[in-house]
Amino acid sequence: MGLTIGVDIGGTKIAAGVVDEEGSILATCKVPTPDTPEGVVDAIADAVRTVSEGFDVEAVGIGAAGYVDDKRATVLFAPNINWRHEALKDKVEQRVGLPVVVENDANAAAWGEYRFGAGQGHDDVICITLGTGLGGGIIIGNKLRRGRFGVAAEFGHIRVVPDGLLCGCGSQGCWEQYASGRALVRYAKQRAHATPENAEILLSLGDGTPEGIEGKHISDAARQGDPVAIDSFRELARWAGAGLADLASLFDPSAFIVGGGVSDEGDLVLDPIRKSFRRWLVGGQWRPHAQVLAAQLGGKAGLVGAADLARQG
Amino acid sequence: MGLTIGVDIGGTKIAAGVVDEEGSILATCKVPTPDTPEGVVDAIADAVRTVSEGFDVEAVGIGAAGYVDDKRATVLFAPNINWRHEALKDKVEQRVGLPVVVENDANAAAWGEYRFGAGQGHDDVICITLGTGLGGGIIIGNKLRRGRFGVAAEFGHIRVVPDGLLCGCGSQGCWEQYASGRALVRYAKQRAHATPENAEILLSLGDGTPEGIEGKHISDAARQGDPVAIDSFRELARWAGAGLADLASLFDPSAFIVGGGVSDEGDLVLDPIRKSFRRWLVGGQWRPHAQVLAAQLGGKAGLVGAADLARQG
Amino acid sequence: MGLTIGVDIGGTKIAAGVVDEEGSILATCKVPTPDTPEGVVDAIADAVRTVSEGFDVEAVGIGAAGYVDDKRATVLFAPNINWRHEALKDKVEQRVGLPVVVENDANAAAWGEYRFGAGQGHDDVICITLGTGLGGGIIIGNKLRRGRFGVAAEFGHIRVVPDGLLCGCGSQGCWEQYASGRALVRYAKQRAHATPENAEILLSLGDGTPEGIEGKHISDAARQGDPVAIDSFRELARWAGAGLADLASLFDPSAFIVGGGVSDEGDLVLDPIRKSFRRWLVGGQWRPHAQVLAAQLGGKAGLVGAADLARQG
Amino acid sequence: MGLTIGVDIGGTKIAAGVVDEEGSILATCKVPTPDTPEGVVDAIADAVRTVSEGFDVEAVGIGAAGYVDDKRATVLFAPNINWRHEALKDKVEQRVGLPVVVENDANAAAWGEYRFGAGQGHDDVICITLGTGLGGGIIIGNKLRRGRFGVAAEFGHIRVVPDGLLCGCGSQGCWEQYASGRALVRYAKQRAHATPENAEILLSLGDGTPEGIEGKHISDAARQGDPVAIDSFRELARWAGAGLADLASLFDPSAFIVGGGVSDEGDLVLDPIRKSFRRWLVGGQWRPHAQVLAAQLGGKAGLVGAADLARQG
Repeated sequence: MGLTIGVDIGGTKIAAGVVDEEGSILATCKVPTPDTPEGVVDAIADAVRTVSEGFDVEAVGIGAAGYVDDKRATVLFAPNINWRHEALKDKVEQRVGLPVVVENDANAAAWGEYRFGAGQGHDDVICITLGTGLGGGIIIGNKLRRGRFGVAAEFGHIRVVPDGLLCGCGSQGCWEQYASGRALVRYAKQRAHATPENAEILLSLGDGTPEGIEGKHISDAARQGDPVAIDSFRELARWAGAGLADLASLFDPSAFIVGGGVSDEGDLVLDPIRKSFRRWLVGGQWRPHAQVLAAQLGGKAGLVGAADLARQG
Repeated sequence: MGLTIGVDIGGTKIAAGVVDEEGSILATCKVPTPDTPEGVVDAIADAVRTVSEGFDVEAVGIGAAGYVDDKRATVLFAPNINWRHEALKDKVEQRVGLPVVVENDANAAAWGEYRFGAGQGHDDVICITLGTGLGGGIIIGNKLRRGRFGVAAEFGHIRVVPDGLLCGCGSQGCWEQYASGRALVRYAKQRAHATPENAEILLSLGDGTPEGIEGKHISDAARQGDPVAIDSFRELARWAGAGLADLASLFDPSAFIVGGGVSDEGDLVLDPIRKSFRRWLVGGQWRPHAQVLAAQLGGKAGLVGAADLARQG
Repeated sequence: MGLTIGVDIGGTKIAAGVVDEEGSILATCKVPTPDTPEGVVDAIADAVRTVSEGFDVEAVGIGAAGYVDDKRATVLFAPNINWRHEALKDKVEQRVGLPVVVENDANAAAWGEYRFGAGQGHDDVICITLGTGLGGGIIIGNKLRRGRFGVAAEFGHIRVVPDGLLCGCGSQGCWEQYASGRALVRYAKQRAHATPENAEILLSLGDGTPEGIEGKHISDAARQGDPVAIDSFRELARWAGAGLADLASLFDPSAFIVGGGVSDEGDLVLDPIRKSFRRWLVGGQWRPHAQVLAAQLGGKAGLVGAADLARQG
Repeated sequence: MGLTIGVDIGGTKIAAGVVDEEGSILATCKVPTPDTPEGVVDAIADAVRTVSEGFDVEAVGIGAAGYVDDKRATVLFAPNINWRHEALKDKVEQRVGLPVVVENDANAAAWGEYRFGAGQGHDDVICITLGTGLGGGIIIGNKLRRGRFGVAAEFGHIRVVPDGLLCGCGSQGCWEQYASGRALVRYAKQRAHATPENAEILLSLGDGTPEGIEGKHISDAARQGDPVAIDSFRELARWAGAGLADLASLFDPSAFIVGGGVSDEGDLVLDPIRKSFRRWLVGGQWRPHAQVLAAQLGGKAGLVGAADLARQG
């Protein structure tokens, strides 16, 4: 099979791209994400038609946040779009006349990194995506593992603190409340509030108040040596690394890949994650250690991964 | 392949059995577990020779507590026997003249249940063994998943309480400190100490003191309605069920199998585990629920599983 | 001194009452709580004038939620009214021409119970108020202990869960997030959501959905045997009792008094609190145990206590 | 009253000293702590007689670890000596012919610091002693507050981690498991084990292994910049400061005094404690902040405090 299309459905934009067998993106287009479920289906179809012009494409892979069933056809539940048991595969196939595969977006990104990014050469890889929330994907024996019902690898919702922070999922103490971009901002706000004298750089980058702190301010301030910003990254890393140690006890992969916006900071965040991972890895002296690698494809991992999954059929 | 031998190395006894393709045990023998690493190797070889007399056996599978490498040949670390990078496969093969496979004991038990017990008919099964500690095994796509380095499925050592109880592994807050036979006894002792008037039956079964409480007393007392015994099982179930919910978020299997001595109590412990599982299952209303099943093979699961893994080669 | 006036400033209503030396209320009036800080001052003055008509009153005691300074004159911070360093004593004295004492409302309620309610005869009493939040007061050596700066006894904001639930105070894991009327409702909603079949009575009392559950439904349902309602009270009691055990380690009083709306349920909630208290009381076998008593004055404790504190001057 | 004697009963030595009204020690003697309860009584009497020779002393104050009753006469329970309801006051009075006051050792030390050390000039002071464990004392309104039954101020055993570390007291998650000399050593061992490359200085001061790390090594290594030693102090400080913030919510003192062996390190440990205290202090922007002061009397605080309490009668 030659060219396929990957579609990445984000909260504000839908991106579609033509991808070849090497994972290279030959053409892309973006459209705003409509408000209604049906509107999104139309927008996907439009984007696919637009981007495929002039290319001979054979299949479409769609990455969407939420639960996708084991047939990779139906979105059982999406947190951002009002899809409930939405037969997305059928609807898009009818509109574009190509075979469609639907995949959870973090699974698609994990597959992209495994095939064309940091995971190349590994058979058993766990990817985590530290974005606004925390998602991930599981590759075991060179296959994406989706679970019996299609909803495996919901890493963000394992409970790391009993009676901990409320989560949008309805549970408490979920990992993504402690290791995610949103958590990072919370850490910085709390610390800047308690000890503003240690957050002068950080506060100067925003509107001067703890409430005005945004994610990009924390990265910039940490690079400039702001103590609160650095400490906030460390706190995030403590939780991320401890969670990876748990995943090592469970999956024992040869590599972890850390992606998502937070990972764009590279070793600023990866080094403390590695340190925390080693600190909490059980039996660390008796076992080979998995590598903790930075993702390589950035925001394109999901699109490229979805396209490749469509190619595999 | 016809008959194989399974060997189960326990802390006090080594059991060997001849097992056929249906998982039936045709003959068994037991010997005490020697004190020295070399002594254990000899004892295994003796047991294999003894039990195989009169049978035409083709391979040997050994289940041992600890880390076993990905070649299923070397015990990297055993908690109970002083094995450190012990080339168990080679040593036993030299002595018995048969191909040998070494497997983690909880993995072997999981495989036994999957093949011949509660897991039959399922492709994706997670087994947990609530014994003195907490172990388990992962079957995905009808294969035992051992991880890249052979040490996956160490369920007992995921961290469920930050800064929690010390664990023999050197970490803190490990799941097996909260969901295991040892935890059950601790729960009962603490409660009997604080409110002896609610533990009259329980205390009467032992020596009358909280310190004298043993696991079997708790089961008996719970059946007779002892409030402390019942509450202790509930506490165990709370932690077990919440952990299964985490494993569902990660693995999304079609079934969980709960084995080990604690599970011998059947629905006394399984019903509260199921309740807690449902309470903490994330996205429970949008996804099919995994079944939570009682193991069926009891203490023989490991021996039968090891024999079958040897048959598979 | 003869008669004094107590004023209780609530979120929706301001109550004023004429109280005699025995703690009896001779007359009362209620007015709605105005929106503006200045409006509240006016309303207090009006209520005092209205209720004192025909009585010879000598002083006014005001109970207000928030931090009150050690001179009992200034409200440093109020959570519900926009008072920030509000000189409440001076402002009301100017309007009503009587000496005024300002006190934290939970302190006032504690004093009321100590003088005329469940605490009579005790020299060292700790009161906790399980209302929407969790407050309390400290009596040691027959004196109300307000701390050096007036802000002692903020029981609701000790941290009982590291990295726990966010609190309105900006911290995390505060006791009132786990032991309060608001917590009770959260427990019931979570449980009714996860296992609606165990919450049939509870759900039938509201609008049929977990979201529609209110505090009064939980009490009624618990009395009718609803498993989720009973379990929710138990969870609240677990946290309340464990916290009392901490307070016993710190203060070693002869009695705890439990007040607030939640305590109106009497032994339904007090018995499990006592059980949990005993479970967690450190050194319980070597020390006399404090009693855990139900408050006796209900919603009038604050008004009566404030009046009596004004009498004491 | 002129001179009194203070006695400090330690696990290995009993120290007695003649103390004047200014808190100056005029003479001291030390004897080993005998093994038997009765032997300790004899040794106390001998030490008192020996040290008082040539002085006109009027009373004896004894500081002992454990629960002391509200009459300051009977040791209800001592963790280190097998005293259970030991009538220590009577027994020593009969032997030495002087009035005797028995006090909890941490209370005595708190009183010493309040009268002659860091607490001078404060009316409301909370002392914590970070020794092997964590103890403390409460001064409110210039009086030592012992609770109704004499066992107040057991700070070490408030629960700061639900389901946390086992404590010698039988409970779990006690503060002293996280903030004490013993905790500090555990932090250092765990970290040196996980990341020995960050503990080179620390390991070089002991026997080269994590197991060989002792408290004094950690202080020395921290001063020399060893990352693991510094991080261990920070972890201790995190827990100590968060606990002080809780005590501020409860007691609202004007000062905290931090004593015990850990505090000998001065600002190395006090600065991070102050930082953590500020981080977790609830309502910090609306209230005056208590000072966090280093104890001044070192190991003599208990002896001097006991002597002064005897003087006060």
